[in-house]
Amino acid sequence: MTSLLLTNIGSLVTNDPARGEPLGELRDAALVVEGSKVAWVGRRQDAPAADGAVDLGGRAVIPGFVDSHAHLVFAGDRADEFAARMTGTPYSAGGIRTTVAATRQATDQALTANVGRLVTEMRRQGTTTVEIKSGYGLTVADEARALRIAEQFTDETTYLGAHVVPAEFADDPAGYVSVVTGPMLDAVAEHAKWIDVFVERGAFDEDQARAILTAGQRKGLVARVHANQLGEGPGVQLACAIGAAAADHCTYLSDADIDALASTGVVAGLLPAVEFSTRSPYPDARRLIDAGVTVALATDCNPGSGYSSSMPLCIALAVREMHMTPAEALWSATAGGAASLRRTDVGRLTPGARADLAVLDAASYIHLAYRPGVPLVSQTFTGGRPV
Amino acid sequence: MTSLLLTNIGSLVTNDPARGEPLGELRDAALVVEGSKVAWVGRRQDAPAADGAVDLGGRAVIPGFVDSHAHLVFAGDRADEFAARMTGTPYSAGGIRTTVAATRQATDQALTANVGRLVTEMRRQGTTTVEIKSGYGLTVADEARALRIAEQFTDETTYLGAHVVPAEFADDPAGYVSVVTGPMLDAVAEHAKWIDVFVERGAFDEDQARAILTAGQRKGLVARVHANQLGEGPGVQLACAIGAAAADHCTYLSDADIDALASTGVVAGLLPAVEFSTRSPYPDARRLIDAGVTVALATDCNPGSGYSSSMPLCIALAVREMHMTPAEALWSATAGGAASLRRTDVGRLTPGARADLAVLDAASYIHLAYRPGVPLVSQTFTGGRPV
Ligand SMILES: [Zn+2]
Ligand SMILES: [Zn+2]
Repeated sequence: MTSLLLTNIGSLVTNDPARGEPLGELRDAALVVEGSKVAWVGRRQDAPAADGAVDLGGRAVIPGFVDSHAHLVFAGDRADEFAARMTGTPYSAGGIRTTVAATRQATDQALTANVGRLVTEMRRQGTTTVEIKSGYGLTVADEARALRIAEQFTDETTYLGAHVVPAEFADDPAGYVSVVTGPMLDAVAEHAKWIDVFVERGAFDEDQARAILTAGQRKGLVARVHANQLGEGPGVQLACAIGAAAADHCTYLSDADIDALASTGVVAGLLPAVEFSTRSPYPDARRLIDAGVTVALATDCNPGSGYSSSMPLCIALAVREMHMTPAEALWSATAGGAASLRRTDVGRLTPGARADLAVLDAASYIHLAYRPGVPLVSQTFTGGRPV
Repeated sequence: MTSLLLTNIGSLVTNDPARGEPLGELRDAALVVEGSKVAWVGRRQDAPAADGAVDLGGRAVIPGFVDSHAHLVFAGDRADEFAARMTGTPYSAGGIRTTVAATRQATDQALTANVGRLVTEMRRQGTTTVEIKSGYGLTVADEARALRIAEQFTDETTYLGAHVVPAEFADDPAGYVSVVTGPMLDAVAEHAKWIDVFVERGAFDEDQARAILTAGQRKGLVARVHANQLGEGPGVQLACAIGAAAADHCTYLSDADIDALASTGVVAGLLPAVEFSTRSPYPDARRLIDAGVTVALATDCNPGSGYSSSMPLCIALAVREMHMTPAEALWSATAGGAASLRRTDVGRLTPGARADLAVLDAASYIHLAYRPGVPLVSQTFTGGRPV
């Protein structure tokens, strides 16, 4: 197994709490990769010999971003809907149906190419783990197809047949729930790790969501929930009650919701690029963090409510708009994402973890917020290899 | 002279009002470059033959960004000041002195390398014209040095000896103004096209600013002003009264200020990345545009109040936070910047203009706002050559 020494790292974020909360940052550091994993981290002058060495010239190295919420299997875009929204048309979940129509008509090849384009774009921006949801097919065949495509790119595939009720079931939502929990679930189960429901007025209510998520759990899928995005609602409490891994959005929360998240350890996924692109109020990250809730930052990359693939933008928004510190924001975009996906092998740079990392053209991770919009990731490594 | 055909352009923004306000957008277009200039634009099927051809696969092409306000000649960074500001320490102009101290100590080579790094970073993000100011030297020798370095990278060099009163003149601001209008001006005049003053409480007042700007005008420099950033003040009115090209910031404006800008044609430069990075209110772009004021968007890239080099971020912020349409924002980031710099050869893609352009990995310029944070510029041409 070949080893590679990355040395002259000005600042190395390990996310190892033993090295200091929250980031376990080391100055003037080095890191050794063996095969696909981190074999050693420490001070530069203590580094062991390796088969090869790269001098990073004082640049910062961080764990690769873990984007725990993305919708990448779709066709077309909604640039015109975006432009209209910016001049006053409010966001509604109904726009999802536009993308459903385009996605159903697209070839496998076109859908696969689009996912590939977006995953490549994410990797160039430092993302090394991405969750990918279905949810623009909404037929048995189209949802199964979406997840077969998604699993070509990631292990973190999520079945989101319950994204919206498709137009053809508008008069029979219960009938659609039966499909989602029956033949659709059967068709997708082997291609999905997670099951998700958009719990929101205009999408699925509490009872429907519970039926769908528990049906998925019986098939071995683990639950995650789109919760409390457009108003207060039952999503967060449901996620906590059924043992979901994550409740994402969390824009409108009651005190009881915060208590439930804190006491159950369900991860709150915050998706500030959506609030940016829908001109909505941002979630109250400080209230969550100060209550002891584990927070993940993710893009929610999708063609409707927010088409950014940029985890650095999410960090800049978390700091500017949600008053997270730069350290909290980076932690949430790496270790927090890993917690949301119940992964212990990513989101950290400690011996034994995957060698998934990003090299920044900057002296410190603070620059991700200090230099918003600037493409600072100069190189991304996944499984020890540059991409 | 070699000619090059760029063809299969999904959307070409020409900024030619004869082709439709404001962007003169052509679909399914082509463009011919001859030497450093645009020789022809039109519909793809009408394109003349050329020595070479590049198929852009339906991508969008826009004029290269004209960043009319940037402070790039400095040493060090202020990441820690930024992090402190995000947790509550308000921005003040006093932080400029930190960068002055670092800049004076830096070698010519280090300063030149830093400008080169930032200009390269800007070009990769689609900026083809950038104004560069002095203002972190604040001695005769250090200001002249800054402008000698700046002119290696751009024709748009701005003498900003009146950035702040340096610490050694704290008790004698009038003495500093005498230096700025006397020996410092003599030393820099041949290296600068523009003269600028930071007109603000804590920096320079109206009388000082008028003395400095008119002294520069007598030496053949053209005036531009940092005006009305931190509160209402005399900057905008002064800019209009003395025939300045631009009044930049314009965050706090009276009705009389707006009238003066509209009636004199002084360009209002809006710098929303600064409001983002100082967590300040954004300027009221709609009020300016609706009053007929010419608006430019620029980065103000500097290590203190906003260290972004990203014109795409400025566009995304202009749309999200200042309610500019995507078309208005792109116009202001290209043709508006050219107007601010009194240039007619850039900021447009019409026959005879410089072939300065950006190719986007997107079907339309709308994606610059629709996909915030994503590095969408796949290639930049300056003077007809890819960079
Ligand atoms: Zn989502
Ligand atoms: Zn400035």
